[in-house]
Amino acid sequence: MKVIKFGGSSVASAEQLKKVLAIVQDDAKRRFVVVSAPGKRHSEDKKVTDLLIAYYEKAAKNQETTSLIEEIAERYGSIAQELGLDVSVCEAFASEIKSLQKDFDESDPYILDRFLATGENLNAQLIAAYFQHEGVKARYINPKELGILVTDEPHNARILEESYEKMYQWHNTEEILVIPGFFGYTKEGQLCTFSRGGSDITGSIVAAGVKAEIYENFTDVDGIFAATPKYIHEPALIEQLTYREMRELSYAGFTVFHDEALMPSFKAKIPVVIKNTNNPTCTGTMIKESYDRENPNRVVGVASDSGFCSITINKYLLNREVGFVRRVLQILEELNISFEHMPSGIDTVSLILRESQLTPELEKVLLKEIEERICPDELEVEHDISVIALVGEGMKFHTGITAESSAALARKNINLRMISQGADERSIIFAICGKQERLAVRSLYYTFFD
Amino acid sequence: MKVIKFGGSSVASAEQLKKVLAIVQDDAKRRFVVVSAPGKRHSEDKKVTDLLIAYYEKAAKNQETTSLIEEIAERYGSIAQELGLDVSVCEAFASEIKSLQKDFDESDPYILDRFLATGENLNAQLIAAYFQHEGVKARYINPKELGILVTDEPHNARILEESYEKMYQWHNTEEILVIPGFFGYTKEGQLCTFSRGGSDITGSIVAAGVKAEIYENFTDVDGIFAATPKYIHEPALIEQLTYREMRELSYAGFTVFHDEALMPSFKAKIPVVIKNTNNPTCTGTMIKESYDRENPNRVVGVASDSGFCSITINKYLLNREVGFVRRVLQILEELNISFEHMPSGIDTVSLILRESQLTPELEKVLLKEIEERICPDELEVEHDISVIALVGEGMKFHTGITAESSAALARKNINLRMISQGADERSIIFAICGKQERLAVRSLYYTFFD
Repeated sequence: MKVIKFGGSSVASAEQLKKVLAIVQDDAKRRFVVVSAPGKRHSEDKKVTDLLIAYYEKAAKNQETTSLIEEIAERYGSIAQELGLDVSVCEAFASEIKSLQKDFDESDPYILDRFLATGENLNAQLIAAYFQHEGVKARYINPKELGILVTDEPHNARILEESYEKMYQWHNTEEILVIPGFFGYTKEGQLCTFSRGGSDITGSIVAAGVKAEIYENFTDVDGIFAATPKYIHEPALIEQLTYREMRELSYAGFTVFHDEALMPSFKAKIPVVIKNTNNPTCTGTMIKESYDRENPNRVVGVASDSGFCSITINKYLLNREVGFVRRVLQILEELNISFEHMPSGIDTVSLILRESQLTPELEKVLLKEIEERICPDELEVEHDISVIALVGEGMKFHTGITAESSAALARKNINLRMISQGADERSIIFAICGKQERLAVRSLYYTFFD
Repeated sequence: MKVIKFGGSSVASAEQLKKVLAIVQDDAKRRFVVVSAPGKRHSEDKKVTDLLIAYYEKAAKNQETTSLIEEIAERYGSIAQELGLDVSVCEAFASEIKSLQKDFDESDPYILDRFLATGENLNAQLIAAYFQHEGVKARYINPKELGILVTDEPHNARILEESYEKMYQWHNTEEILVIPGFFGYTKEGQLCTFSRGGSDITGSIVAAGVKAEIYENFTDVDGIFAATPKYIHEPALIEQLTYREMRELSYAGFTVFHDEALMPSFKAKIPVVIKNTNNPTCTGTMIKESYDRENPNRVVGVASDSGFCSITINKYLLNREVGFVRRVLQILEELNISFEHMPSGIDTVSLILRESQLTPELEKVLLKEIEERICPDELEVEHDISVIALVGEGMKFHTGITAESSAALARKNINLRMISQGADERSIIFAICGKQERLAVRSLYYTFFD
């Protein structure tokens, strides 16, 4: 049995929902259908979730909301109409949307979550009605009925472990269950939404809960590419990769979805496939615990991300001082700054961190604290650094990846600010000057692909 | 004016002392002569310092010491005789050696230091007498008179800052001052020896104190080589390198001398030259603050050291956890373990540390603490790792050193456990399997030299 999830653009219009139905019907094992709120139908369109946020803000300010309510209801109404559904469905939706603002109490910590979740919740009801209308044995199921229990953290809920057992009771369902993504309920019955990755995380949780043989994640791209199309024209599609590779690629610049959302499936060792609603015959990208074949690719992908900075501390004999680095990290921790990498020379240690964490003031405080408490011989900051990750489980079976990749960068005169390859040999991380990011990704990509 | 220092083998025999005199006389600027205790004359010989330790141990146990006292006195006596010095000199020496054990009090924290320092102290007196005998205007000077004040830490003394001003008063000396290395005096007048690097450190301190134009360190090798002769047949002599390069090379396996000993000169920006007493016309190796020429060598040397281990910690999303690494380092610190490098992947961090710090028991405790307090997804230890350092200030001006060096290792099928290049770009550190150390050093050496 399979859990299948459709993202916002896959459920944005009647035309898209017809594709969804065809996909669901194409395989009788597809019993759990997790859906997002309607996304954009074209680049200028608005997502229903964004309309709901606007509606929430107006309601909070006690402003006129009628036109927004109509706009939201109309998104569902037009789909329903085009699909030939009974208008009564959408009348009920309109009144449900309208009732959100009744007794609006801004101090209620759950109120925003109720607004937000409405997009998914109504869409699941609409899609279930459409399926039934087409003679499919399907029904909407509320996350509470399904057993999705979450922590009491509005907009930032996490799944409670006991949910999995509850969900497993549904694993033999005869009906197709249409599930709204993005939210669950606290033990006290309050609706709370997940932090990020919305419906992705619901799909991943349900797949783990019902012990699906696969979690099919339908998006609007063919799968995961070996490099970003931003830099590479028609990059290679990755046919298969491991959870870890996925994670390492996501770390630096892969935005197909938020990799944390897939964790529940990963932990339950359920394979995940990324497919395209608009091109369902494409095999997509399969993400599994490990490779089926013995000799995986040397490199599966090249990812990059900008907006890092490095702080380099020079101090004579620093690695003889037990606790030296710990004291540096203590300062970071006190200022609530996390770091990504810490390459070290003999008397040198550099910290690579995300620049977004630092305001100019915080940077000053950080440097002052290091200066005063660590007394370095030299202290240097460099901004606008990009990090490139070359990822592949196969690296450990092939010597020379470091040589090939650094040679590729050297040929393009790209100077390495840092290179780090850890003992697990799944990735090589390069830090380079931000201006050279595109050039670096291209030179690495064309070294290992094509 | 120059400070010149002679190591143990340079002052081990009459024949060697004749070379020393010739070297000193060859340049009128050589006014401060720092000397070690007599070292080995041949590979089966004993160092006077080792004889003094044996003498101390016997005296502590109240055992018969006569033959040891005679053996030590005879080392000086035979030199004096061969040099044609007055026998009275050595009679005084014998009684001074004998008097060490008078009122032997093991609870006296300074007693071992007094035994140890005698080797240098008598040799300086002998050499001064020899110089005078040869008509050179020279005299022995005691470190106390010279102004070498040290911390009150027996066998582990450090120079006190105020010493430098005191020593500077001697900078215009007309006489050649012969100074015993290895010890100084506390403010209370107690003799204390330095921890390591014995006479090297005295020479370095005196050079800084008298503001010498150069510190000449005479040894029994032509200088510093670009790789160890243990692995490379007739390695290239390094003509010039910087303090930092010296330091980075010393870190991994260079044992010409203890690099910390040179710190006082380095801090005072006094050039240091390593020369060979047995081959004084060889220009040796010059160590300076920075290069005279604009474009330094890409690589000055390859150093290696064995006996490391790596501890690899895998934990999903670890770099999002502020304080994660700090908590790992806290554990190390509590167990008084220092680490050398910390390469990191996306969800991985490895610690490279010197194996000598870990007993099997301590390793177990360390792993247990990490397991319990960090809850890693995976925890792995690898023993018998060697670290190779490729060093050169010129690296930052040349792209491609990483590529060339890792390609050289790849050609020999050497798998990199870790590669780390920090932002200062003065060295690249490779961690490899210990068995491949020799092969790795050879392949890197022949890539950049020859």
